[in-house]
Amino acid sequence: MSAGKNAFYAQSGGVTAVINASACGVIETARIHKDKIANVYAGRNGIIGALTEDLIDTGQESDSDIAALRHTPSGAFGSCRYKLKGLEENREQYERLIEVFKAHNIGYFFYNGGGDSADTCHKVSQLSEKMGFPIQAIHVPKTVDNDLPITDVCPGFGSVAKYIATSTREASFDVCSMAKTSTKVFVIEVMGRHAGWIAAAGGLAADKHNPIPIVILFPEVEFDQQAFLNKVKQNVEQYGYCSIVVSEGAHWPDGKFLAEQGTRDAFGHAQLGGAAPVVANMVKDALGYKYHWAVADYLQRAARHIASKTDVDQAYALGKAAVEMAINGDNAVMPAIVRKSDEPYVWEIGKAKLEDVANVEKMMPKEFITEDGFGITDACRRYLTPLIVGEDYPPYENGLPKYVTLKNKPVEKILNTDFQL
Amino acid sequence: MSAGKNAFYAQSGGVTAVINASACGVIETARIHKDKIANVYAGRNGIIGALTEDLIDTGQESDSDIAALRHTPSGAFGSCRYKLKGLEENREQYERLIEVFKAHNIGYFFYNGGGDSADTCHKVSQLSEKMGFPIQAIHVPKTVDNDLPITDVCPGFGSVAKYIATSTREASFDVCSMAKTSTKVFVIEVMGRHAGWIAAAGGLAADKHNPIPIVILFPEVEFDQQAFLNKVKQNVEQYGYCSIVVSEGAHWPDGKFLAEQGTRDAFGHAQLGGAAPVVANMVKDALGYKYHWAVADYLQRAARHIASKTDVDQAYALGKAAVEMAINGDNAVMPAIVRKSDEPYVWEIGKAKLEDVANVEKMMPKEFITEDGFGITDACRRYLTPLIVGEDYPPYENGLPKYVTLKNKPVEKILNTDFQL
Repeated sequence: MSAGKNAFYAQSGGVTAVINASACGVIETARIHKDKIANVYAGRNGIIGALTEDLIDTGQESDSDIAALRHTPSGAFGSCRYKLKGLEENREQYERLIEVFKAHNIGYFFYNGGGDSADTCHKVSQLSEKMGFPIQAIHVPKTVDNDLPITDVCPGFGSVAKYIATSTREASFDVCSMAKTSTKVFVIEVMGRHAGWIAAAGGLAADKHNPIPIVILFPEVEFDQQAFLNKVKQNVEQYGYCSIVVSEGAHWPDGKFLAEQGTRDAFGHAQLGGAAPVVANMVKDALGYKYHWAVADYLQRAARHIASKTDVDQAYALGKAAVEMAINGDNAVMPAIVRKSDEPYVWEIGKAKLEDVANVEKMMPKEFITEDGFGITDACRRYLTPLIVGEDYPPYENGLPKYVTLKNKPVEKILNTDFQL
Repeated sequence: MSAGKNAFYAQSGGVTAVINASACGVIETARIHKDKIANVYAGRNGIIGALTEDLIDTGQESDSDIAALRHTPSGAFGSCRYKLKGLEENREQYERLIEVFKAHNIGYFFYNGGGDSADTCHKVSQLSEKMGFPIQAIHVPKTVDNDLPITDVCPGFGSVAKYIATSTREASFDVCSMAKTSTKVFVIEVMGRHAGWIAAAGGLAADKHNPIPIVILFPEVEFDQQAFLNKVKQNVEQYGYCSIVVSEGAHWPDGKFLAEQGTRDAFGHAQLGGAAPVVANMVKDALGYKYHWAVADYLQRAARHIASKTDVDQAYALGKAAVEMAINGDNAVMPAIVRKSDEPYVWEIGKAKLEDVANVEKMMPKEFITEDGFGITDACRRYLTPLIVGEDYPPYENGLPKYVTLKNKPVEKILNTDFQL
């Protein structure tokens, strides 16, 4: 235990609607344990902030601004897409981290990210053993892709799932109204290049009270054009309309993404569009149905206005648990969500070893996808439903969510030396 | 006044998050005045339901289901894109309407739609005078495009505006977090082929507490590529990132839409995509910035989960007022919103003559767009802000909004004769 030392906290990779809720959990919990953790320094733009000695003094922020992080989407300190190489490959980077950590008396390292970040965190956790610098590294899970192992769910996913399920239901009601004389097919494109978790959430839009015909195109299922067109046709003939949820990762048997349909603009540049317009046009060409399509992109992962309360609660709890684990002397671990029961959904915080988390991708189980490859099974519903339950509305001002922008004051530099990224 | 007669109600054109709130206002108010209005028959799929004698007996719906219309997006009875021709051009259609109205003892005609529908409603209002059939026709305004004259605002617009402003703010927070090493430019495409009201709402995402750099491409302003690129570059250099709101109606000086950039797919088919990917690629080509883009499409007009309370209240009030006007003997009118003050926003219900509404488009005033053509003025903010104020959340079940699907039982046919649409 590093009594009285400072903590470093950084956000990594794509941000989410609730990564700041984890930051809130980390900082509020650290503030309760001032005797153990003197200050929380955040990396400006993630790990880059550590390498360049660009640290943010979160101690300068008011309690109410830190509390407001809980309802603010995005990464309050800036994130980055920057992966540290292996300790052997790029020893210089780790020496620099140690240099900065030493200068600022940092004994705790909290890294808030996905799979790649868990790997980085794991490497930092080995600094004590391999390079003689005492530090405790704890990973705080985050990723809308929901592809981390061990934890029941990754914070960020539940809110995207709620957004996509809600949006798919709403747009389906819309196209159903229009179908008699106009639009019969609505296509929504969702994130998830490798795993179909988000696409699966679109399937929740339909249930026993809402018999919406939804066709899902998963990255896990090779695209079968004829089967797909047959399914859409059958839905339109039976229901009058059809909704399609297409993952950005949906692909042909040869691995080529649907989005890479050879689209070229007037200048000959390849691929302007996404998968949604490709699928929509395919339906129009083969079946003649009028369509509309949407690409949710960042809107889905930033939509704090319709965040899942379960997701917000878990994101906060994991940040809090990370600090408590650090205080209790843990290193090289990640607090994780453990599901005790589906209905009612009961969860608790468990602890995973980083060596079991780093570089392992959790894919959708086969039994979550219906046999025809276009829908979700009851098992999938049982898994997904509790993750989107509960609303946690932000405060509003002048009709808009009131999100906080922190002051993000820098910690005075001590080294003041350049470091080449 | 047609005591004891039935009313016909129909939804027309593109549906919205709150058109059912107007239906709720019509039906609940009619139920209070059973002595004046015996039953409300809704047209299945709008006016087509009247022409084909396909009427829905709203009397079969429970009070609680009718109340739930207030929080349900889309058109509960089905809408249509079908415009009646002039009385002289297609007398047959009007004779058919009279035949159906006579058969079902219909003395009131409530038409819930935009500009085209106001024109149809106006024609129906003349049936008494021109064809000797006593009917009172009242138009209930609705259109996300906000382009009807006289009324301060059109129901449906305020909720789209709230959705677009919120989504733009949320995505801007996201791209701001990512900008250091990744995405620097975010583009969101919004509806509005002729008028930039919705695009203008994107500008509300920025305010004195949220200095977000937003560039808006309005349909009212001829696209100036160089000025646009300069503005984006300047924003990225100053703020590190830039958000762009592009109207689907944004166009080049020659009138060609940005979306029609000559995009072709592998089969040589024209234009898969929208304006957003075109603009995003243009920025990438000229300035090299990494981008993300979203196309909101139906998501924006169906997003009842983040409807504006002001909008919902007005939609309901206009439906209610339409019935009260009918009962008071009015014909050929439209209840309208009259703004009494901006701050606090005070509004009341006024009355417009249909002859002044039909076929008149209300465009954005020039003084609502900044001189450089890329932003909104304070006058525009004063107009827009009150329209998005207030939240009116739907109930949730299993994490999703609980929207009602009516039974929509048919009124027994009396004529049972075919009519060719």
